[in-house]
Amino acid sequence: MRSEIVAAALESFHTQGYSVGVKDITDAAGVPKGSFYNHIGSKEEMAVEALAQYAATLGLAELADESVPPLSRLRAHFERLAGQVRERGYTRGCMLGNFAAEAADHSTLIRGAVAAGYDGWTELITAAISQAQHDGTVASQLDPVVAARFLINAWEGALLGARAARTEDSLAAFFTTVFDVLLRPGSGDGG
Amino acid sequence: MRSEIVAAALESFHTQGYSVGVKDITDAAGVPKGSFYNHIGSKEEMAVEALAQYAATLGLAELADESVPPLSRLRAHFERLAGQVRERGYTRGCMLGNFAAEAADHSTLIRGAVAAGYDGWTELITAAISQAQHDGTVASQLDPVVAARFLINAWEGALLGARAARTEDSLAAFFTTVFDVLLRPGSGDGG
Repeated sequence: MRSEIVAAALESFHTQGYSVGVKDITDAAGVPKGSFYNHIGSKEEMAVEALAQYAATLGLAELADESVPPLSRLRAHFERLAGQVRERGYTRGCMLGNFAAEAADHSTLIRGAVAAGYDGWTELITAAISQAQHDGTVASQLDPVVAARFLINAWEGALLGARAARTEDSLAAFFTTVFDVLLRPGSGDGG
Repeated sequence: MRSEIVAAALESFHTQGYSVGVKDITDAAGVPKGSFYNHIGSKEEMAVEALAQYAATLGLAELADESVPPLSRLRAHFERLAGQVRERGYTRGCMLGNFAAEAADHSTLIRGAVAAGYDGWTELITAAISQAQHDGTVASQLDPVVAARFLINAWEGALLGARAARTEDSLAAFFTTVFDVLLRPGSGDGG
């Protein structure tokens, strides 16, 4: 029953946001409302657990797979995420960004989980950028940590823009600006 | 009484999110709950009106002020917004992004208002970038509309990152990457 509640919570938080009611989650799981608190201490704790399960859908293992050239796997990572966004008709966004917007100001627990999620993701992108700089496929002038943080934020913002417009424009602006301009070697690299 | 309700709604939506209760808004305005619907048709309509008032705090008139050199006013615009974010201890974020995350999937009215807000802002930034390209202070290789959309999204994402970490890191990554790398002429401009 616990795993059904967590799965329902992940789906409910992602489609409805953090403000979704516990009863909506237990209804979606097909269990009585009271059973929620038998299994989980609080809605906040449930959100943190759902976020951990959500992170498993982001393809971070592929992003870390050093058998693939670093720039290729960086691009494939964002293409994979973009594919998910298109499948959902530009709705839902990213749960990290959603929780940052909805819950981070009010819950230290959720804010910490979102920050940790961003940090872990940033580390993997930092490594890919740094490796791509070594093989000459990404501009050497960029600080890998700063660029990684910027890329993740630009992605999260692109999801908001795509969600408002329900068009490809914000995703296209992300891919063009990041991969054709910002990361490209020779851009300001003295090249 | 109406203007008190709108002011309370703006503050409540910005600090608590779209899920804030109508009663919380009327309590903050110091008026009876019933008076809300005497003045405003729905919470959605209130959100759209609050968003319009919020837009007036973004300094768009200064961004459009062509007596100031275009790159200077573009930078001053984001510095002004960053100042507001720091004053609020990195909380609250931007109401456009918040409503995109919380309400755009569920309300056509709010989604339209957010998209219109983004579009108006994008137009002003497009104009500044285009003018800066003409005076040689921004890289000519960038498509001004694409770059403007990208910048706004990157900013909105930086606010989410700042909100999760409550540090300057995401804002610093935005300013460094945008103004020292992406917009700088000579970067990939054949320079």
